[in-house]
Amino acid sequence: MPAEWEPHSQTWMAWPERPDNWRNGAKPAQAAFSAVARAIAEFEPVTVCVSAGQYDNARARLNHGNIRIVEMSTDDAWVRDTGPTFVSNAAGEVRGVDWTFNAWGGFDGGLYWPWQRDDQVARKVLEIEGCQRYRTEGFVLEGGSIHVDGEGTLITTEECLLNLNRNPHLSREQIEAVLREHLAIDTVIWLPDGLFNDETDGHVDNFCCYVRPGEVLLAWTDDAGDPNYPRCQAAMRVLESARDAKGRPLVVHKMPIPGPIHATAEECAGVDTAEGSQPRDPSIRLAGSYVNFLIVNGGIIAPRFDDPKDAEAEAILKRLFPGHRVVLVPGREILLGGGNIHCITQQQPAAQQR
Amino acid sequence: MPAEWEPHSQTWMAWPERPDNWRNGAKPAQAAFSAVARAIAEFEPVTVCVSAGQYDNARARLNHGNIRIVEMSTDDAWVRDTGPTFVSNAAGEVRGVDWTFNAWGGFDGGLYWPWQRDDQVARKVLEIEGCQRYRTEGFVLEGGSIHVDGEGTLITTEECLLNLNRNPHLSREQIEAVLREHLAIDTVIWLPDGLFNDETDGHVDNFCCYVRPGEVLLAWTDDAGDPNYPRCQAAMRVLESARDAKGRPLVVHKMPIPGPIHATAEECAGVDTAEGSQPRDPSIRLAGSYVNFLIVNGGIIAPRFDDPKDAEAEAILKRLFPGHRVVLVPGREILLGGGNIHCITQQQPAAQQR
Repeated sequence: MPAEWEPHSQTWMAWPERPDNWRNGAKPAQAAFSAVARAIAEFEPVTVCVSAGQYDNARARLNHGNIRIVEMSTDDAWVRDTGPTFVSNAAGEVRGVDWTFNAWGGFDGGLYWPWQRDDQVARKVLEIEGCQRYRTEGFVLEGGSIHVDGEGTLITTEECLLNLNRNPHLSREQIEAVLREHLAIDTVIWLPDGLFNDETDGHVDNFCCYVRPGEVLLAWTDDAGDPNYPRCQAAMRVLESARDAKGRPLVVHKMPIPGPIHATAEECAGVDTAEGSQPRDPSIRLAGSYVNFLIVNGGIIAPRFDDPKDAEAEAILKRLFPGHRVVLVPGREILLGGGNIHCITQQQPAAQQR
Repeated sequence: MPAEWEPHSQTWMAWPERPDNWRNGAKPAQAAFSAVARAIAEFEPVTVCVSAGQYDNARARLNHGNIRIVEMSTDDAWVRDTGPTFVSNAAGEVRGVDWTFNAWGGFDGGLYWPWQRDDQVARKVLEIEGCQRYRTEGFVLEGGSIHVDGEGTLITTEECLLNLNRNPHLSREQIEAVLREHLAIDTVIWLPDGLFNDETDGHVDNFCCYVRPGEVLLAWTDDAGDPNYPRCQAAMRVLESARDAKGRPLVVHKMPIPGPIHATAEECAGVDTAEGSQPRDPSIRLAGSYVNFLIVNGGIIAPRFDDPKDAEAEAILKRLFPGHRVVLVPGREILLGGGNIHCITQQQPAAQQR
């Protein structure tokens, strides 16, 4: 699996529309997704998967020469988790892993039902691209639960991958074996937990990511009263003692956590009530994170929250990615739906010899 | 517009499913379409557009390494008429014309309503391929109503293109001007009518086609009692006196007409009744035609009808296309729905300098 900073042929997205997750008929979310798509499209092509009913509307709102629209039915818009995980071989041939998807926990804490259309997204994407597909029938994984350095190391969280609502029939070693086999991984670094209140059961992409081989960026708080404090401490202990696949210790950079951010009563009131959907309430702290950014060809597309820490986050990203142009895009509407920019995007590596 | 015998990058199809046009829940038609797709796939790649609900089923039935499935909602499966008409320029760049589609006549004799999804097919196909699009807003045309020699000549029928249910606001000269502009046509040859009882209002692709520059193949009967007799005679008079864009007279080959073919009562009983849909009755003669074949890379995919004239039709095609392998595929189920192999396929020319 190539690292995210390796050249992309394009980035995939899906169009938000379900009114029991996105307020006000998903119109604010559609505007937010459009801004993300247009920001990425300044760096590389974007393909957005859109339902038949929203095709015309999406086409109109995504009016950019570098954005392609394809019809595809989905259950929601988290293509990081529903799309394929692209891999490539030494000859540069790009293929895709089609993990089984169960909406982040199936009937044991999953976020919606049914999830059949979402589970089909990866195969449909791969078929459009003419890429060969590896289907992991019975092995549940979401792309947002892993990050790789492209040199044999993968970071994930126990909270997610060892959760009994994912692959309860498999041990940690058996799960590692699947990752090794499908992604050519030598070393798995297990953080205990992800960010507090992350609906995905602690996806690593909202908490800790690679910025280059040997260097990671970890969401961080020094406030001992913040429920994220023990999570950050525990992750730091793992990262400080870890060695990657090349035997290197890791340099750990810290990224402040915005907020705490809560939805307003008005924002929550705009979400449809539906049986089995996530409740939305101003009392629930949202899992906002600047780590949830996407690396594109020459750019960093990161969320801003109109938060006092926005400027510091931007400065950190600029320092860590001196060769990239850092673009901050409003992330609050995406966060209200349960994730952020990395969660709603999936990079497709360019076909190139490695 | 390249001629059909020029190299293709692939052929497009769409998956039949509407039960008010295809008997027995479209299962016999799906088998027939699958046989066509597999026959083409022996010569060139095929992409089949399939609704979300039929995606898995189509994927299973189209189990061939050269057949790609993409999700697309349609109103029916006639991609010759709903898909783009591909054109290319001297540099070899392939683009598409997205004609306005009104289900063969709109509210004045059209075959179903709504037709919105079908009208979107061309743009969706072009977007998947990344091809630029020319939309003829307000100019109604179906791909099956034209045939070209790739050297500036187009053949069509007055019955269709001058029908008041297509472009009543345009004169013959104005229609010719649109064809000239979009397809780089110099000469339009107007046959009076197409085949008897053709639901499309006489599409030329069920009646007369080019086999190479300067040579056409015309459906033919010598039976003066056949309602096709005056149609064939009138077409022959036009063709014998015509000069193509290069100033050549035409060689006219004759192709016998099968049948007469009628649906059985049992076949008609398998079709759902729906307001506005075509009535199906054993008394109605079907517009069966061997001319309704597709030229692919190195092959001819033509219908057979288990008719006494099948062998003669095959022999004629082999004689006219000595460099192609002629493959006959059962066409009756497709005919029951209102067309045949050429109607359900759309070739995409290869990108090559001309």
